[in-house]
Amino acid sequence: MPHHVAVLVGSLRKESFSRRLALAMIKLAPAGLTLGIVEIRDLPLYDEDGEASPPAAWTTFREQVRKADAVLFVTPEYNRSVPGCLKNAIDVGSRPYGKSVWSGKPAGVVSNSPGLIGGFGANHHLRQSLVFLDMPTLQQPEVYLGGVNKVLGDDNTITVDATRTFLTGFMTTFAAWIGKTGRA
Amino acid sequence: MPHHVAVLVGSLRKESFSRRLALAMIKLAPAGLTLGIVEIRDLPLYDEDGEASPPAAWTTFREQVRKADAVLFVTPEYNRSVPGCLKNAIDVGSRPYGKSVWSGKPAGVVSNSPGLIGGFGANHHLRQSLVFLDMPTLQQPEVYLGGVNKVLGDDNTITVDATRTFLTGFMTTFAAWIGKTGRA
Amino acid sequence: MPHHVAVLVGSLRKESFSRRLALAMIKLAPAGLTLGIVEIRDLPLYDEDGEASPPAAWTTFREQVRKADAVLFVTPEYNRSVPGCLKNAIDVGSRPYGKSVWSGKPAGVVSNSPGLIGGFGANHHLRQSLVFLDMPTLQQPEVYLGGVNKVLGDDNTITVDATRTFLTGFMTTFAAWIGKTGRA
Amino acid sequence: MPHHVAVLVGSLRKESFSRRLALAMIKLAPAGLTLGIVEIRDLPLYDEDGEASPPAAWTTFREQVRKADAVLFVTPEYNRSVPGCLKNAIDVGSRPYGKSVWSGKPAGVVSNSPGLIGGFGANHHLRQSLVFLDMPTLQQPEVYLGGVNKVLGDDNTITVDATRTFLTGFMTTFAAWIGKTGRA
Repeated sequence: MPHHVAVLVGSLRKESFSRRLALAMIKLAPAGLTLGIVEIRDLPLYDEDGEASPPAAWTTFREQVRKADAVLFVTPEYNRSVPGCLKNAIDVGSRPYGKSVWSGKPAGVVSNSPGLIGGFGANHHLRQSLVFLDMPTLQQPEVYLGGVNKVLGDDNTITVDATRTFLTGFMTTFAAWIGKTGRA
Repeated sequence: MPHHVAVLVGSLRKESFSRRLALAMIKLAPAGLTLGIVEIRDLPLYDEDGEASPPAAWTTFREQVRKADAVLFVTPEYNRSVPGCLKNAIDVGSRPYGKSVWSGKPAGVVSNSPGLIGGFGANHHLRQSLVFLDMPTLQQPEVYLGGVNKVLGDDNTITVDATRTFLTGFMTTFAAWIGKTGRA
Repeated sequence: MPHHVAVLVGSLRKESFSRRLALAMIKLAPAGLTLGIVEIRDLPLYDEDGEASPPAAWTTFREQVRKADAVLFVTPEYNRSVPGCLKNAIDVGSRPYGKSVWSGKPAGVVSNSPGLIGGFGANHHLRQSLVFLDMPTLQQPEVYLGGVNKVLGDDNTITVDATRTFLTGFMTTFAAWIGKTGRA
Repeated sequence: MPHHVAVLVGSLRKESFSRRLALAMIKLAPAGLTLGIVEIRDLPLYDEDGEASPPAAWTTFREQVRKADAVLFVTPEYNRSVPGCLKNAIDVGSRPYGKSVWSGKPAGVVSNSPGLIGGFGANHHLRQSLVFLDMPTLQQPEVYLGGVNKVLGDDNTITVDATRTFLTGFMTTFAAWIGKTGRA
């Protein structure tokens, strides 16, 4: 059965490594898995008072995530944690109370950095939120992609064989995880 | 020597418990310590591309934090972590590279919730960022204030004696911590 | 298909709340799920040099976990994290390299305390290890059982109806999770 | 004023990189700072029942830490967290209730690995415990020393200039932190 995955990118910079990595990984998806980026740039900061008359951007975002079968997060680390823009998107999607769009959707987490550590802090802080949001999250392979600047080509493909093979395996494993833990 | 503390509130709701708790705690400050809330509501989501022509709200926020001697974070937990709006403020203040407004400023962390757990997840995720930001952070007393809705009066005072005594002690200890670890 | 769950208790005290809670939860298991405590008390501290001639206690422990279909962790929090004795058991089971006994086994996490916070810090630190160990971990319902001393009877049953109902639901959900994510 | 630092090594392997790194760092201490490893190998797993008649190893360990002015932790990461042996030592030192040997002592955290990530998960999990233990902890420079196997000489010195300079700076900053936040 085909599945569609909403991809959330944790950086708003137009040429961010996370966006380029997300685009590269979309190309590595196995048959039956389609992926598309859901934009988080225009989401006003979450404010519960706003639920009386929700901003259109909140409503659109919630609908986009709701219709997806699973979610893939591709994110840098900001200040040893999840970027505020990505956390805000998570907060917006989790509300109003009882209407979270995340609930039950299988999730994958891909953190990355030009440096060596590969966004470990963002990766695990994000995973802690996914517990609360009841998203069955793929454990292995973990992806902390260091040196991301050295593996991306101008056309947003993975130029290093070992990395491409690793990420292709990740996508295949993630597809199987969605099949096993997602909605029937 | 008097010190001024910038207070950041992790919820945008007008009548949020965190804001009311922050206002109540400001009243408990010992002599020589002044505190004022620095608003984070209007900060556009951090986007490095924006540094070419920074939004006025970023610049104003950075200036307000920069002139403070220390920072007190008063925050709820959203989805087992730091609210996106607060993390966004942290990200905005940390940039551009090499010009973080946080560096070296002593910090205190107060998490709270109407429930029992008192925002433990937000508290420690926030502390992980403060390591990177080089903010000497008060360890004890930890504040995970559960049942916050039961200790606040209409005039934003603490109505329960034991809680008021505890938070007064926190403020005194925090003032001493600023004296010890802050700038001369 | 029946499944057997190895239960690890994160406190060595004979009358520890975690042990008593584990015994009480075992009684709440649905049909088809059997559970038994695997003792961690006698495990020498992990030391890679010991692999040349592994202590009998390591070998016995590894065999006991290996034959289980899933693992349930019932633990207090020590110093805002996983008790050393439980982390040591995890380390022993994870080695030697390539022979982890944990790999692929579904996991559940139950933290508890007499206080209000219910072991949140231990719960999530443990979950971070389970990512590396490739154990599909149940997300909801989370169990941070505060006031554990007030819900246990002398015969290690749950004496409070709401708590018993909640934990019974947890066991049923955990059984379904094992069926979905465990080995065929 | 001279200060003495208890060094805790988070691996029991005789030739562990953490031990060798600790020995190398001891040699980089500035004047006025002396450091010595306090061994954790022989500590029986913490069990509150044991307090009725504490094992001699617990008592000796507690005395050794108590007389130090500060603590430096040098540790690998085991299963994305603090090694059980090190967490056990922390637990032993924190008890019995009200008699923690850690309280108020300044702390430094050095994590390391042969791989790239440098023990990030152990580093921050350990820091979470240090909050509860009321140990003022140096924030910057953070040390996640990846590739540790490539910077250590046979005589346990740092053979790479940039690394030696970085770690020398860390020791100097740590000494100043002890002076500022430690007991008078």
